[in-house]
Amino acid sequence: MTERERIYLFDTTLRDGQQTPGIDFSVEDKIAIANMLDHFGIDYVEGGYPGANPTDTAFFAKKRTGRAKMTAFGMTKRAGVSASNDPGLTALIASESDAVCLVAKSWDYHVEVALGITNDQNLECIAESVAAVADAGKEAMVDCEHFFDGYKANRSYALACAKTAHEAGARWVVLCDTNGGTQPDEIAEIIADVIASGIPGAALGIHAHNDTGQAVANSLAAVKAGVRQVQGTLNGIGERCGNANIITLAATLALKERYNSRYELGIDAEGLTDLTGLSHGFDELLNRAPDPQLPYVGASAFATKAGIHASALLKDPRTYEHVDPSRVGNTRKVMVSDQGGKSNFINELKRRGIVVSKDDPRLDKLITIVKEREASGYAYEGADASFELLALRELGSVPDFFHVESFRVMVERRYDSHGRVKSVSEAVVKLEIDERRVMSVSEGDGPVNALDKALRKDLGKFQNEIADLKLADYKVRILNGGTEAITRVLIESIDDDGVRWWTVGVSENIIDASFQALMDSVTFKLMKNRKLAGRAAAE
Amino acid sequence: MTERERIYLFDTTLRDGQQTPGIDFSVEDKIAIANMLDHFGIDYVEGGYPGANPTDTAFFAKKRTGRAKMTAFGMTKRAGVSASNDPGLTALIASESDAVCLVAKSWDYHVEVALGITNDQNLECIAESVAAVADAGKEAMVDCEHFFDGYKANRSYALACAKTAHEAGARWVVLCDTNGGTQPDEIAEIIADVIASGIPGAALGIHAHNDTGQAVANSLAAVKAGVRQVQGTLNGIGERCGNANIITLAATLALKERYNSRYELGIDAEGLTDLTGLSHGFDELLNRAPDPQLPYVGASAFATKAGIHASALLKDPRTYEHVDPSRVGNTRKVMVSDQGGKSNFINELKRRGIVVSKDDPRLDKLITIVKEREASGYAYEGADASFELLALRELGSVPDFFHVESFRVMVERRYDSHGRVKSVSEAVVKLEIDERRVMSVSEGDGPVNALDKALRKDLGKFQNEIADLKLADYKVRILNGGTEAITRVLIESIDDDGVRWWTVGVSENIIDASFQALMDSVTFKLMKNRKLAGRAAAE
Repeated sequence: MTERERIYLFDTTLRDGQQTPGIDFSVEDKIAIANMLDHFGIDYVEGGYPGANPTDTAFFAKKRTGRAKMTAFGMTKRAGVSASNDPGLTALIASESDAVCLVAKSWDYHVEVALGITNDQNLECIAESVAAVADAGKEAMVDCEHFFDGYKANRSYALACAKTAHEAGARWVVLCDTNGGTQPDEIAEIIADVIASGIPGAALGIHAHNDTGQAVANSLAAVKAGVRQVQGTLNGIGERCGNANIITLAATLALKERYNSRYELGIDAEGLTDLTGLSHGFDELLNRAPDPQLPYVGASAFATKAGIHASALLKDPRTYEHVDPSRVGNTRKVMVSDQGGKSNFINELKRRGIVVSKDDPRLDKLITIVKEREASGYAYEGADASFELLALRELGSVPDFFHVESFRVMVERRYDSHGRVKSVSEAVVKLEIDERRVMSVSEGDGPVNALDKALRKDLGKFQNEIADLKLADYKVRILNGGTEAITRVLIESIDDDGVRWWTVGVSENIIDASFQALMDSVTFKLMKNRKLAGRAAAE
Repeated sequence: MTERERIYLFDTTLRDGQQTPGIDFSVEDKIAIANMLDHFGIDYVEGGYPGANPTDTAFFAKKRTGRAKMTAFGMTKRAGVSASNDPGLTALIASESDAVCLVAKSWDYHVEVALGITNDQNLECIAESVAAVADAGKEAMVDCEHFFDGYKANRSYALACAKTAHEAGARWVVLCDTNGGTQPDEIAEIIADVIASGIPGAALGIHAHNDTGQAVANSLAAVKAGVRQVQGTLNGIGERCGNANIITLAATLALKERYNSRYELGIDAEGLTDLTGLSHGFDELLNRAPDPQLPYVGASAFATKAGIHASALLKDPRTYEHVDPSRVGNTRKVMVSDQGGKSNFINELKRRGIVVSKDDPRLDKLITIVKEREASGYAYEGADASFELLALRELGSVPDFFHVESFRVMVERRYDSHGRVKSVSEAVVKLEIDERRVMSVSEGDGPVNALDKALRKDLGKFQNEIADLKLADYKVRILNGGTEAITRVLIESIDDDGVRWWTVGVSENIIDASFQALMDSVTFKLMKNRKLAGRAAAE
């Protein structure tokens, strides 16, 4: 094998992805996503626009990545002020970033209409801004906005912008198809011309949008033409039709012989198996249902419906699969027969330390229950702890720690004596523990909070055991339209050991669904304590 | 302009699209979709597999299209029986179809493993089946299954299959990327070889799948390489990651100079403006929410969030749009968001018929309020109706239709006299309408449903006006982790005019947030009725 060239993956989920209608990241979201990307092995994480808004400024107050280069995004300096006197550029340089990506106009029409300066002034702004970033010891890169449309309108000026950035010391000159309408063969032809004009492919990047459904194809055409940095977003979020899906790009570059024989990524084979989890984890964070048709990672990506393909697939999966699903952490699904179902289950249980034989009739019953519950809205793949409890219950090893006799939640909104609107949420929970009745009442910020407080206020002899249990996250998804729809609640809990677990509840009634998930969380914590105590006793 | 070559669009929504997990068409669905496709100007409508199941047999009992060629799909005859004695082939020929598409193995491994016959026997089956279709006076075509993978495994045999079909009289030889993993440049290279081997491009078709996110790019690469028939499905439904999206393909072929200067479709400029309606109408029939990011036709395809792009877009839309949205029946959207400037606001208001001058101090106040509310969790870009109400309130033109004195919601779970768990949700709403107090109580499936029913149970003199108001969708997003977090509720409403509107509510308390959104929905409906009445009076 000849030496392979390195392709750098640049993620702009936190910057261009933020332009997606309906998506607004908090600082906590941004930190969580940067961690996911860093862990996965992305080379650059573009985090936003420090100085432009409080969220991005807070994100860049600290270094948030380990391996990945944290990249700040902003504009080149304004004409008429020096780089050191431009507050925007100063904020970029002052931010906790390894690299700074400067967006620059490369279509002469935009220089005139949007910036209102001369073409030469724009080139000066590019050169001086790049130099200022490089002088500050940071890696400089330039996003040439509208590069392909600009090239078609005024080839020599677009090339001049790119060359100016390169010659001023930019590590990367990124060619952006900002409007997203360029076709793959145009991309290839124009990049060939850029390289012929003197900028090596090793200094070029591609930033593609999906307005004709070809963001991935445009990115790969650019790689073939010579660029070595590829930009994209998780699950292809982004303005209008989105950016190139960086997950699809990573999988194709890593798994297709046409690419992996010539290029390598900063992600190894093991890292690649995180792809499906990365895609679903990101949707989970956005609280939206994953697209089942997503390439490589969608729930349907390796699913075959009954018909002529299914039996051949069972004979030899390679005949109907373009790659092995396990390489991207996904699984094969043949929807006609559940041959794979049982061994999958045994594996899932084993992973949790639960050993059960293939012939155990309780296993068949458990599989039936899980399927029925998933059909009615439960989602055990996102609720590990509830799945474990369900399995242990069927195998007969969960004690009845406590019994819930009833609960009641009340929410009232009215005017107080000063004429101000006042909302009160109150919950009453009645439990039976060791034949002793316990009744608790609590107020809270909203009905679920009140219910949680009341449930955990007095758990009798178990109260000390759950003292360190805290709720870390709470998600609600409505499974069908309308307020009469089914509600699924997922709750994440954490304790002082730093262990986190997810539980699920499903009901027509959001309060009821929340209560199921809260109960599972408390029970899981009690089981966990017993498991630890058992281990300590055995040692 | 030189003479343009005709590209034929072949839709397989009703056949390959039926392989999508979760999609099962009834005969009525198939008839409705065939009508939509026919009306739009698709050349071929593949309707299914007559003889294989009752739905498809019923669909093919009558001619369902006008202009479009109705195409039946099935297998080539089995080895060892004559074409006239093969019941499958006989059913295809007997069906009410203009064309018959025969699927044939073109990968030698599949001939051996799936069919269990010799390579020569397979070629014989192809030749005799095509001849039988052509002899019956129907247009014959052959889907070469696994053509590209077959070509890579055994080039000469794959080519022999294609040539046999062509020489036996097939109007079209369709090259299928059945497993969906082939890259655009491989597609182009292999098709060039097929044409060099003697089959003209005018007799070739392409059938691409989206397993690497490049179904559209693969189809267009094939067109560039010479094929003249392109297969796809509405909105890209299909097995696994789906087929090529025929809507995206039609728009790109018709609107991009690289294609429309050389090729023409059976769809004129006016027909093209039906694209957005076709895409949404199909989703409507499937009862699923349209994907806002779909190229050309998605609700976000021409949407710009505030920021550096929005002001330039308002100056000259062409600078940030790769095509004019009106050409595909879509519209431009510049969205309100906390990054929005004054001109954005004025435009957004104008679109809603609200005229306000740039110097009006109420405008500054409105912008401040929107920004504050968005910072506290409101999302007006997803809640048009709430935005409009907020603006009208600030500009002083929303009457106080009713006043909410208080509401109370109670959820109780306990055991009934038979020992079964029972949940009850009950809401009480107290309103004041024209100094008359109205009190309503209602039970519901969950607290929000109960509250909605109670609020709309008696709205005094307005009750008739809201009789046709229905809730269509309900979304909940928790904005920070934990049950003490802020909850954002979005509610979609619909009335008998078919108008849909979204409203938003935000609170620590999910019940309170839901109530705000419900109130806005009712108020918007009352305002809408007055606007219509005003218009009718003016006419």
